[in-house]
Formats: sequence, C-alpha cells, structure tokens
Amino acid sequence: MDTAVDALAELQAAIPVAGRVLRTTDLMAPYLRDEAFLCGHGTPLAVVRAHTTREVAAAVRVAAAHGLPVVPQGARSGLTGAANAVDGAIVISLTAMDRIIAVDAAERTAVVQPGVITATLRETAAQHGLVYPPDPGSWQISTIGGNVATNAGGMCCVKYGVTGEYVLGLEVVLADGEILRCGRRTAKGVAGYDLTSLFTGSEGTLGIITEITVRLRPPPGESRTVVASFASIAGAGNAVAAIIAAGMTPSLLELLDRNVLRAVENYRPMGLDTTAEALLLAAVDTGPDGRAAAAAIARLCRAAGAGEVHTATDAAEAEMLFGARRMAHQAMQQWAISMFPGGDGGVIVDDVAVPRGRLVELMTGIAAIATAQGVLVSQVGHAGDGNLHPNIVINRADPASVDAGRVAFDEIVRLSLALGGTCTGEHGIGMLKTGWLAHELGPVGVRLQWAVKHALDPAGILNPGKALAPPPGENGMTPRQRRAGP
Amino acid sequence: MDTAVDALAELQAAIPVAGRVLRTTDLMAPYLRDEAFLCGHGTPLAVVRAHTTREVAAAVRVAAAHGLPVVPQGARSGLTGAANAVDGAIVISLTAMDRIIAVDAAERTAVVQPGVITATLRETAAQHGLVYPPDPGSWQISTIGGNVATNAGGMCCVKYGVTGEYVLGLEVVLADGEILRCGRRTAKGVAGYDLTSLFTGSEGTLGIITEITVRLRPPPGESRTVVASFASIAGAGNAVAAIIAAGMTPSLLELLDRNVLRAVENYRPMGLDTTAEALLLAAVDTGPDGRAAAAAIARLCRAAGAGEVHTATDAAEAEMLFGARRMAHQAMQQWAISMFPGGDGGVIVDDVAVPRGRLVELMTGIAAIATAQGVLVSQVGHAGDGNLHPNIVINRADPASVDAGRVAFDEIVRLSLALGGTCTGEHGIGMLKTGWLAHELGPVGVRLQWAVKHALDPAGILNPGKALAPPPGENGMTPRQRRAGP
Repeated sequence: MDTAVDALAELQAAIPVAGRVLRTTDLMAPYLRDEAFLCGHGTPLAVVRAHTTREVAAAVRVAAAHGLPVVPQGARSGLTGAANAVDGAIVISLTAMDRIIAVDAAERTAVVQPGVITATLRETAAQHGLVYPPDPGSWQISTIGGNVATNAGGMCCVKYGVTGEYVLGLEVVLADGEILRCGRRTAKGVAGYDLTSLFTGSEGTLGIITEITVRLRPPPGESRTVVASFASIAGAGNAVAAIIAAGMTPSLLELLDRNVLRAVENYRPMGLDTTAEALLLAAVDTGPDGRAAAAAIARLCRAAGAGEVHTATDAAEAEMLFGARRMAHQAMQQWAISMFPGGDGGVIVDDVAVPRGRLVELMTGIAAIATAQGVLVSQVGHAGDGNLHPNIVINRADPASVDAGRVAFDEIVRLSLALGGTCTGEHGIGMLKTGWLAHELGPVGVRLQWAVKHALDPAGILNPGKALAPPPGENGMTPRQRRAGP
Repeated sequence: MDTAVDALAELQAAIPVAGRVLRTTDLMAPYLRDEAFLCGHGTPLAVVRAHTTREVAAAVRVAAAHGLPVVPQGARSGLTGAANAVDGAIVISLTAMDRIIAVDAAERTAVVQPGVITATLRETAAQHGLVYPPDPGSWQISTIGGNVATNAGGMCCVKYGVTGEYVLGLEVVLADGEILRCGRRTAKGVAGYDLTSLFTGSEGTLGIITEITVRLRPPPGESRTVVASFASIAGAGNAVAAIIAAGMTPSLLELLDRNVLRAVENYRPMGLDTTAEALLLAAVDTGPDGRAAAAAIARLCRAAGAGEVHTATDAAEAEMLFGARRMAHQAMQQWAISMFPGGDGGVIVDDVAVPRGRLVELMTGIAAIATAQGVLVSQVGHAGDGNLHPNIVINRADPASVDAGRVAFDEIVRLSLALGGTCTGEHGIGMLKTGWLAHELGPVGVRLQWAVKHALDPAGILNPGKALAPPPGENGMTPRQRRAGP
C-alpha cells in the first residue's frame, strides 16, 4: 500500500488543481465501467479527469514509476469492457479534453481533443460545409477519442468506411509518459511505419490518444431512402447480396429482424410492420441518379421476395426510419426489462461480421442457436457490411438464463469465424472476446500482437487485460469459454 | 566466408529447383537496384527467385540462421533504393509469384500473389466488372507486392486513396521464417492490432509480403476531363485550391509545368501548349452531373486566370492527356540525356507533399531553389493531393552538377517540411530519405519506429538500411545532408 500512498501523493502534486484527481468511492463511481454487460470491473486507485496532455502525461509517469495500471476512458459507451477500471489503476478520463482545436475547410481537416463528442464534431464540420461521416450507434454521446481507440464503425461504413479511415494524425501519450506525434496533415504521406493505424483500435493498450487530426469530406448531397419488408430473413439477406452484386454502393444498408421491429414499435410506436420477419433499410446518395439507384434497389428487393417496398418521400420520413434503427439497442433493453417482471432483464450485444455472401447462413444459424439455447436473440445490423449485432435477451437474476445467453454469445462468434468472418466487426475486443481473438489470430498472430505490445508498453501498464489475446502460453479464456470452446 | 558458404549450401538444399537460387554475377546483375538515382547498391550473396511462400520462408530461415541480410524485391520500379541489394544479402525476388489466386465479385475482393503486375490486377478486376483503383506511375510494370510494401499512390488518390486503403489482409513471412496471416476477408473488422497497415509501406523491413487480399470497387462510370493552361504556376495552384474549396472531389487533378510540357512534347509531339507556364488536368466521374462538375471546374480555372480551358470531347482525347501526364518521368529522362550531349544526363525524382493550401508556396519555392542552385527542375504531380514530384535535371558526368542537384533535392524536402508537409508523399523513404525521416518524425517518433522494428525483426536482418531513420544516437545522414542539414 505504500506504493499506492506514494503514487497518490505524487499524482496530487503533479496535478494540483481541485477536482482533477478523484479518490473517493462515490466520486469514482461513474468511472468504473462501460456499457458492456458480461464484464466486471475493479477498484481503481484514483480517477484523473485530465484537462491537458501534460496532465495525462503526468499521470502516466506516476503510474509508470510505481508500476500501476492505467485505464484511459472516453464516454464509456463501449460494449466490450475496454474502458472498465481494473484494481489499483489510475483511470484517466479524457472527457474534459473536449475542445475542437481547429477546422481547416480548405484542407478538409479538423484537429480535436479526444473528449469531443462525435455529434459535436459532426455539427461543427457541417457548419464549415463539410461532413465527418463516422456514425457509431452511440454517436450522440460517444467521444472521438473512444471512437479512435476502438476504430468505431456505424451505419455509414458501407460507403464511407470506419473511423480509422478518417484519422490522419495523432498525439499520443506513451507508456513512459513521453508524448508522440504521428501521422500527417497532408492528404498523402508515407513517411515511416503507420503508427497512426497501429494506435487506432488498440483500445488504450499502446498509448493514450490526446489529440486527433481527422479528415473531413464534402457533403454527399441529398439521399433517398428505401425500406422493404420481407417474410423471411433469407429474403432480406438475398436482397443485400443482390444489391452489392449489382455494383451499387448504398450509403446505408441496415437490417432489422422481427424482434427488433417489435421492440422498437413497443418502445416508440411509429407504425413499423411488425408482421415482417425482416426489414431492410437502404439509402443512396443522390446526385440526379439517386432516383434511379433507389428504384433499382426497390426492384432488387422485390425480386428477392420483398412484400412491401416503400421509398421515403421526404427527409423527415427517412430520418424517422433511421431513428428506428438507431434506437434498436435501447428498445431491446427496454423490451428485455419488460420481459422479466420481477426479474432483471437485459441484453448481451454481440458484434460479428462475415463476408456479405455468408450473411444468410449467419442469420439462419443465429436463429438456430437461439432456439437451441432457449433464448431470444434479435438480429440487427449493418447488413451491407456483413456486420451483425445479435441482441441476446437474458434475465440477469437467473443464472441459467445468463448461462444460456453466454453460450449463445459464444456460439454466434464461433459460427461467424467458421463462415470466414471475424469475432468483432466494430465493437472491439475489450475484456469480452480476448479468448476468441486468440482463436481468430492464431498463434503467430497472437505472438506478433504481444511483440508490438511489449515494444510499446514493456511494463504492461496500459489497460491490462484488454484488447489482446491471452499471452502465448496462457489460456485466459473465461470459464464459460473453457467449457464451450473455442 | 564460411558462413556464406554454409548459407549458400543450405539455400540450395532448401530450394533445390534449378534457376531458383542465382549466384553468379551475371545472373544476379538484374536484381541489384531499383530506379532510384542517388542510391548505391551492394553485392548480394545470392538472389532467390521465389515461386512459393515456402521458398520465401526457407530463404529467410537460412538468412536468420546465419545473420544475413534479406532484401525483398518486386519489379524494382521504385524510386528510393528500397529494393537495392546490400552486401552479403539474400535478395528475394517475388516477381515469379504472380498468380491471381481468386477474385470474388460478390465480396469485391481479390487474393493475389505479390508478383502480380498492377496492370494485370486492374485488367482482371475489369473482367469481373470491378476496378482496382491504385495507379502508381509505374503501374504497367510494378508489382502489387511492391505497391503494398511502399504503400504506393498514383493519380487516382485524390478521390480513391492510396494502395493501403485497398489492402484487407496479408500473408507475411516474418524475420524468423514463420508465416503470419493478418487482416480479414470481411468488409469490416477490428480484431487485434492493425498489423496489415503496419506492414503496408514498411518497405520489407518488418516482413516479406507473400499474399495480398485487396478490396475492389464497382466502376465509377464514365469520366469527363478538363484541361486548363495557365500563364503562372500560382494561377494553377490557386485553381486547385478553388476546386477543393468548392467541395468538389475530382477523380484526378494533376499539374504539369512548362518544363514537363516541353519534355513531353519533345518526347512525343501531341500539340501540348508549351507556352503555358502550367497545365492543369482534371477529371470528374460522371454520373449525369459529371457535365455540371466539369463545367464548374472549367469555370473555377478561368476565375483563377487560366488561358485556354478545354473539355475533352471523348475518351480517346482524355486518354491522350492522361498519357502525356504518365510519360512525364520518361520524357524528362530523355530530355535530360539530350541536354548534355557527351555527358550523362539524368533526373533525380523528388516526392514531397504539403497541405493543399501551401502548394503555390511550395512550387514558387522550388523554382527559387532551382534558380539558386543553377539546376533545371521540372514540376509535375498530384496537385489535388498537394503531392509534387520535382524532377531535378543533372549531368552525372559532372560532380558539380550532381552536387547542385543534391542540394536542390534536400532544399526541396526542407521547404516541404517547413510548409507543414512530409518528406515523401508516395515514393517512400528507401535509402534516399532516412535522414529526412528523422527530421520529420522527431526523436520520440524515431524511437518508436525502432521499437517496432526490434519487436518484429530483433536481429535486424530484414532490408537493413532502408525505410527507417538512423537509430537513435546515430546520425546516419549522407555527407551531403550533413553539409546541408537537416
């Protein structure tokens, strides 16, 4: 405990401003975990609400000097436990570093602090006549720093790509407290290893991102939205394949299954067709040919067996439909709560991606897994990317229900890998999928990931237990995983 | 020498097929260097013409066992010496690994061996109704493996990005001969550190790429080409800024100065306006609004002071104009030869990028540098990306001319960095710019690059002396650089 006492004293001395270093249980309570369901958290030594890069560096130096773990945190809207506190850690919250430092419309770039809310950056870009496309589900509360640390996706990705494609440069506090600037301000540049991409998605295990230079885009113009209902999941999946095979690039191509439709309609009635087995939601950017593209999508949906196919007549209607998609997670949570009166309903959100052509196999397989485990699993996701978010409904008060949910979770990941997919399309590894990551990467991949980790964080203080597969030689699977595989 | 003898015997034993292991001076001669002008090369121990990943791995294992350097090579069309042999090295040529393993039109992916010629991949993609956009200047002879190893750019980048944006996954032979597969086959995926991006652009210093999964795109449709001549470099630069500021995204935006125009016209007469100080070449993808976009570009060029502005009436005319741009390097080389009858004329091709808004400053600065050093420097490049390729004309038979050329080369890089740019937009570091890389990255950046290098190649056998800044503590600049800076 001497180490802890010394470290705390040094932390206070290094960051003497009131309210920056939180130590009491009640003050630290909001900083313990993210939105992940199956992940526990530890008791940190302190929470630092950093306001400057210097404060982040000072906190890391104290941690390095005492060998304490460091857990960086954004808005804690993640779904994998990547931001969860570990015992004895110095948690560094970046949410107060929320300045947009510069927007350069001519260069189509912005320089931002990590605590900037994604929605705020999007609004600011819009004020300059530009767009910042990435739109993770939590974009109204998530931070850019968290988006970069997890390489967050969203609905735009099918056309506009994930967060990483918009990151030009970073400022990063390294494991020894030194400050690195990497990347560039130019449109092109190949000087040196691509450390920017290495830090992007590394979930705070290689360094703490304290400034981000993002690329902005000119606005795509108006868009046109098509919604099609299907009597079968397979029909919707086939429509997705047909749209991609036709050489189209919709700006959004989302799928909601019947359970999600019912949950959303239950949560906020908006006249969705809850008798359909699946709803496909597509948008295309209009130039003058948007109308033709929308008509082509409608035609392909009908050919794939769609029942009702409707093209939104105005932006408000389209926005209502996107809103329905965006509230899927929240609606499912509410639905899960209502499903177990007197219990403790909740959802485990999974995140898998397969080659687009295997989407129907994935979705029908998930339905079979749900039946076999006797749990309700709703399916919603970015169909155009083959990226699905099965929501597994469980009663947390019932260990058998939790257990069945976990088995379903693992079986879904296993199926995704068997179909040539990945264990995470966009949510990341966090604490949730370290065992599955080992399975996906294989021993050489795991060894290399650890070689990089050791090179950048030799003492292993940065966000331990997250993002990486168990070190070579260790098993590291959860008891559940050991029982079920991988 | 015992090591060398042993290593050779082991190499022959591991790869017993005739013609795979080349040892004699004459057989090895074609594999000694790339197209870079200022870079020397050493004498390799052997050249391995690998036909399989197993042969690559076998060669690397022999090298690792004996501590010999390994130099991987594609078509040797690079311009930085990255592929140049070093003394005692096992050079591994990948050009014979030239199979297109699979094209999956539904997933829009292709799996290829590294020796596939860029043009061949583009043609094969086209046969499947798709495009592989990256088009480095040498695309008709360069290999995909070399493109990935250098993260090559091209004319398409202003809209479609560089090679790295099309690399989904890799197979890589590591420094110990183990075989890694990294990346994914799905549209999205965030499992583990992004090793794929780390290997991309690492110039063979972290591993040898033996298979590549690339992303393909649906074709953009027809395009429309605008060509505008300017009486000043500044006018052309201002037109570029205006086009970008207007929120346009041309698919190509190239600049050729008067020297290049004269060299091209000299090389292959095509009626280019050699009285103009600069020619701007723009293309926009047409949908039905391409006509409007082309008209807008023409209008912006006129507003920026263009003399003649012409919109190509057909594809053949557009292709002729692109052809003029593509032959710039070759034409400049021919022109340089003709400029020193009885001498040994040649060009040093530089490659710098600045924020687009600084392009005029860069170009006028380069003109001033040329005047100050008494050398002829032509300017050509990807203006829409702020990426310029000054061609410095020298007489290799005249040490004073070479010296002046080198000073100009360094001064151009120095200016680019001073303008917030980078020392290489797309050609890479190779042997040519290791000193400048240190200048650009700074000490923390250099330290981190070496940490990664040591993690993946602890013995330092992979392409030594390339791509990295001199190790921390060493100077490593060329004598010229020591005199001139940085």
